[in-house]
Amino acid sequence: MSGVTTSGEARQIVDQAALIVTPAMRAAVDTLDPRMRLIASYQLGWCDAEGRPTNAGGKGLRATMAIVSARAVGSAEDGLPGAVAVELVHNFSLLHDDVMDRDLERRHRPTGWVTFGDGQAILAGNAMMTLAFDVLLAADENGPKSLACLTRAVQGLISGQSDDLALEQSPSVDLAACLAMEAGKTAALMACSSSIGAVCAGASDAVVQGLSDYGFELGLAFQLVDDILGITGDPKVTGKSSSSDVRAGKRSAPVVAALTSGTDAGRRLEVLLADGPPKSETDVELATRLIGEAGGLDWAAKEADDRLARALAHLDVLADDSPARADLITLANFVVERDR
Amino acid sequence: MSGVTTSGEARQIVDQAALIVTPAMRAAVDTLDPRMRLIASYQLGWCDAEGRPTNAGGKGLRATMAIVSARAVGSAEDGLPGAVAVELVHNFSLLHDDVMDRDLERRHRPTGWVTFGDGQAILAGNAMMTLAFDVLLAADENGPKSLACLTRAVQGLISGQSDDLALEQSPSVDLAACLAMEAGKTAALMACSSSIGAVCAGASDAVVQGLSDYGFELGLAFQLVDDILGITGDPKVTGKSSSSDVRAGKRSAPVVAALTSGTDAGRRLEVLLADGPPKSETDVELATRLIGEAGGLDWAAKEADDRLARALAHLDVLADDSPARADLITLANFVVERDR
Repeated sequence: MSGVTTSGEARQIVDQAALIVTPAMRAAVDTLDPRMRLIASYQLGWCDAEGRPTNAGGKGLRATMAIVSARAVGSAEDGLPGAVAVELVHNFSLLHDDVMDRDLERRHRPTGWVTFGDGQAILAGNAMMTLAFDVLLAADENGPKSLACLTRAVQGLISGQSDDLALEQSPSVDLAACLAMEAGKTAALMACSSSIGAVCAGASDAVVQGLSDYGFELGLAFQLVDDILGITGDPKVTGKSSSSDVRAGKRSAPVVAALTSGTDAGRRLEVLLADGPPKSETDVELATRLIGEAGGLDWAAKEADDRLARALAHLDVLADDSPARADLITLANFVVERDR
Repeated sequence: MSGVTTSGEARQIVDQAALIVTPAMRAAVDTLDPRMRLIASYQLGWCDAEGRPTNAGGKGLRATMAIVSARAVGSAEDGLPGAVAVELVHNFSLLHDDVMDRDLERRHRPTGWVTFGDGQAILAGNAMMTLAFDVLLAADENGPKSLACLTRAVQGLISGQSDDLALEQSPSVDLAACLAMEAGKTAALMACSSSIGAVCAGASDAVVQGLSDYGFELGLAFQLVDDILGITGDPKVTGKSSSSDVRAGKRSAPVVAALTSGTDAGRRLEVLLADGPPKSETDVELATRLIGEAGGLDWAAKEADDRLARALAHLDVLADDSPARADLITLANFVVERDR
């Protein structure tokens, strides 16, 4: 499948979902108090720090997944509360993670805490998370089920970020712990996103499970690609600083794979990173090169492909000729192919 | 009514509620991942930083209110999910507020962020908040109604803390804005606490509203007493540093009342605080004295008494001979009389 075609088709699916998700998101965010509304709108890319309209939002991939998962069982509209909720939770976690990780930029703009201060950014994250629960509460009789789906994902997100912070302080990290952390940070919410619309539409447990498993595996693939981009990626594309993960000394999966590869390059990398993040630009470049030479990037690319294959296999719970299934396949390929 | 008697009776009501609330709280917290469980348990006063058992918890006033409000309509047990949820939300907000306010001590111990770091403390707060929703979700058919009661309180808490942070940066604060902020910070969750048990027990809208109004007015009274203690209080009693609010330059209601009193002392206070918090211990003592001389403390004490009277009037929704009503009266007097 050609990357260009996948990308074009995927964008169409995302744009189609955004047509109904964006107004629902705005209606939800409008219920927040003025200060929280401003910060949420900034985080969502709708306005600048003074509230002037901008167009700097994310792709809305999670909301799209929720809408398509609803279409697999009922109508796109059935998935709206779930779509709004997962997008709010995703942005809550971005706001908070940026505070904790002291990240300065996201989507080519200063992060929330840089713009509004730590406290207001933390509060706006809390407000968005609480709003997500409210949106599901206001929904139909399947509300309680979808709420449980969301709280599970939020606890997964929290555990993943907590593990991430803890692993940063840890001298040696094994690959299993690293993947478990990434499962929490990305796969938990993706599993929720790809099934909550079906939950809202009243799907059977088997269909919900299959869609959730699809999202979980895809989330891991997505995170592995993100890890690769954090090492090699073009900051103009990713909206992050170049080699930002290497510079920050982040033990992402490709780095841990390199460190535990048993290769010469892996051992040299270990020595280089023994006293924390690389200190000079020369060391950043050397570390980046050693991660590649030790096979860390190749391993991550192969693992991402394997996870993608598993994700697609879980779509067997949907009929072969289901348009929603075709769209989930397109989205999955898009997620893993992006910018590689 | 004698303070000693009120205090003794109130403690009995709190202890009685704790008999069923504590096991339910522990069962809920046990579902968290190990790191979040440790931090939540520390925050709740159940253990030290290494997980060794301690007994340093708060009074559990909000959980008690929830249990008594359930007894007003049904059984104490009906109020358990609500009691656990409001206590979790209260502690979530303490954990987060301590991060934002850089407070070093709470209940005579280092605060959560001092002990576990900012990131893990923020995450544990999020985990406790999410757990509160889960506890209500797992409850009976009145779950959705109690969830809506809780999300409203959480948004109130968030707005109140956000206003508090914003007012700190503001050169002039009027008393109405200050009271609105305190309503969010304390009264919103108290209103939820004193009615959510009744919601869980299936009370009529009129009873829920009366109990909520009682909690709202009582919450303001409680906060005003807290403000007085933050200026004059004995740190051995409050668990906070002496004159901590004055030292931090906090514009709490008594301070704003003093500043806007039109008195000489008020004007001298304004000059003293013009460049931020008092810089020396002498200035802290002078500011503390001027707040009193300008009538700030007397105003706060009278306002607290007025709010208490309004709170008690709202209990007319319950029968005169209702034991729960008697307990809510005792608790209200206890809250406003504490340590004055």
